[in-house]
Amino acid sequence: MQFADRLNNVETSAIRELFKLLGKPGIISFAGGFPDPAMFDVEGLKQASSTALNEEAGAALQYGATEGYQPLREQLGSFMAGKGASVAPQELIVTTGSQQALDLIGKTLISSGDKVIVEGPTFLATIQCFRLYGAELISAPIDAQGVRTDELEKLMAEHQPKFVYLIPTFGNPSGVMLSLERRKKVLELAVKYNTLIVEDDPYGDLYFGAPPPPSLLALSDTVPGSRDLLAHCGSLSKVLSPGLRIGWLIAQPELLAKATMCKQFSDAHTSTFAQATAAQYLRGGRMPATLAHVRQVYADRARAMGEALRRELGDAIEFEQPGGGLFFWARLTGAHGGLKDAGEFAKRAIEQGVAFVPGAPFYAANADASTFRLSFATADVAKIEEGVARLGRALAAA
Amino acid sequence: MQFADRLNNVETSAIRELFKLLGKPGIISFAGGFPDPAMFDVEGLKQASSTALNEEAGAALQYGATEGYQPLREQLGSFMAGKGASVAPQELIVTTGSQQALDLIGKTLISSGDKVIVEGPTFLATIQCFRLYGAELISAPIDAQGVRTDELEKLMAEHQPKFVYLIPTFGNPSGVMLSLERRKKVLELAVKYNTLIVEDDPYGDLYFGAPPPPSLLALSDTVPGSRDLLAHCGSLSKVLSPGLRIGWLIAQPELLAKATMCKQFSDAHTSTFAQATAAQYLRGGRMPATLAHVRQVYADRARAMGEALRRELGDAIEFEQPGGGLFFWARLTGAHGGLKDAGEFAKRAIEQGVAFVPGAPFYAANADASTFRLSFATADVAKIEEGVARLGRALAAA
Repeated sequence: MQFADRLNNVETSAIRELFKLLGKPGIISFAGGFPDPAMFDVEGLKQASSTALNEEAGAALQYGATEGYQPLREQLGSFMAGKGASVAPQELIVTTGSQQALDLIGKTLISSGDKVIVEGPTFLATIQCFRLYGAELISAPIDAQGVRTDELEKLMAEHQPKFVYLIPTFGNPSGVMLSLERRKKVLELAVKYNTLIVEDDPYGDLYFGAPPPPSLLALSDTVPGSRDLLAHCGSLSKVLSPGLRIGWLIAQPELLAKATMCKQFSDAHTSTFAQATAAQYLRGGRMPATLAHVRQVYADRARAMGEALRRELGDAIEFEQPGGGLFFWARLTGAHGGLKDAGEFAKRAIEQGVAFVPGAPFYAANADASTFRLSFATADVAKIEEGVARLGRALAAA
Repeated sequence: MQFADRLNNVETSAIRELFKLLGKPGIISFAGGFPDPAMFDVEGLKQASSTALNEEAGAALQYGATEGYQPLREQLGSFMAGKGASVAPQELIVTTGSQQALDLIGKTLISSGDKVIVEGPTFLATIQCFRLYGAELISAPIDAQGVRTDELEKLMAEHQPKFVYLIPTFGNPSGVMLSLERRKKVLELAVKYNTLIVEDDPYGDLYFGAPPPPSLLALSDTVPGSRDLLAHCGSLSKVLSPGLRIGWLIAQPELLAKATMCKQFSDAHTSTFAQATAAQYLRGGRMPATLAHVRQVYADRARAMGEALRRELGDAIEFEQPGGGLFFWARLTGAHGGLKDAGEFAKRAIEQGVAFVPGAPFYAANADASTFRLSFATADVAKIEEGVARLGRALAAA
């Protein structure tokens, strides 16, 4: 069977091989990008779905508008307003997870050979998603304050990309937070180069101490002309439940209309059953307490992981303590003649009973093979300490 | 903003303009392709979702495998077995409605310029979906026994298509049922020309009298080599609830693996919440009664519409009485110097307070402008009789 040419652009085996090993009994996994199911507000979602089926079964079980279920669009508008971004219901469409928002951006915008700038490293599924539509990805370097805007500007000037894709807040995998100053700079670059910025923001609500700076979307009011050059992807997956598959895309009207047209032929619309449930949940007012709880638990786990890493691995690795999100991003230093290859480290870690993801596949180009990602989301503090101790043994075994 | 080249291949305004008029108060609509929400088994779905959240909340609310939620794959395997097709759980993937199954087939198989044969007429969203991936569509004529296999063979020989897309059972919009003899012929053609056949089957369960012939999938056992050349799309939308967005794709392993990879970057997976609910519903054993009820109601409505059409429109139109599905497909004959343009007829019908869809947009090529589609699914018998009377007045006003 001859498959479509676009499939030649993607390569998915890199992490898959490692994930096969995760089934090993007793393994402690820092590998996933999943929230902890113990934190799902099952009771609240039960009430929400029950209310949806009691009060609006006809709509919740029927075909719906491709743009999204209107009560949910309204709730999501309010949710965004609570985060400082003024978004009318008609300025967003509901997507089947924010993965679909990325897919629709690709489908709507990318012609074969178009250049797209992403962070190095960036979300793995974004790389593959955009490549499937024929994008040539350019990798912009990051540091502890997020993407380096000086380098980003050079790349924008040189490559004239179709758009720039960023995860400014607690990015996957980097965990870093783009500084306020650089956020403003990114918006200025959008205007200066008349280039669309795609802001992916699934983690912004998961902060541990002070809230992060406003999203690019919320800040766009301060940079004239930038709002129309901004697409924003949101998601309930990390804060409420991935299983609902509720994401959203905010963009200027023409782009939103084209994305809606593409969505019509992708899946007609997102499950109205899930949308009505999410709308009832948001309306029910439990979200602030849910977020507070999730933040607290993840903050404890992140602190425990940071302390354990410093204790058990010392100067063999370097990392920034994340201020939110789900991930540590670390680099093997090779100190004292130690290991520098994170792929090799991952294999030995599995032998010691702990899993994580090597960093190389997260780079669209110029992969740094000494990097790796650790998620602290699904293991409790005791498991985190035991898992990091195993990491220490794996490194010592090297 | 410059959009992707692929958007130049689609045109979506044809029906949209008409649908805008549907909001007119008092209108009787035969235009939709929706099931009647009054027939949703709300009680059964309430129980199913409640059971899912009581017994398997961790899975129902968490990320899931791209291939689908295993208990649902098992239930769908059994569901297919009940229709005479032996399908192991790993031979199908769950999709976000069968629209996504079509999208994944397009994404996985169609390179720009590839030829795809479809029926003339065929499902509107399929035309646009495949064109978005660059397909050049070839239209194969149908008659009262479905696609004309003699013509289909000529087109297959001439165009060497990437695949052939058919809705063999109560097709949208044609309502026709491919005869058993022609089903076997289609499978033989698949083998003879080594060409994939995509069988879209959302309506096969909605028969009014005797069941239709077995699906191409169920028949493929009788034509050696044909099973591997068959992809089958199924859906719960027309028989249970569109709002769940539960469809599935059955195909040979290599195609299924590529489609799964594409789905990973389209929406990661279908809502596990909806999947777990659907699995519990199917497990609960209410589906046979639900199907029997739906069949009876639609059969009554189809009979009423056929009688009313003959009574009110006489020889001004011609049509076959459908044996299942949701649609009448009719043609203005122009008898006695009457109207032959279904677009014009639709406009006048709206003025009389009744809506339907003209047939031209359902053709990928060589549109027959005298055709139109009437859905009998959402209006009760009294509304159907009143609506068809209005059609009669619209025609007389011409």
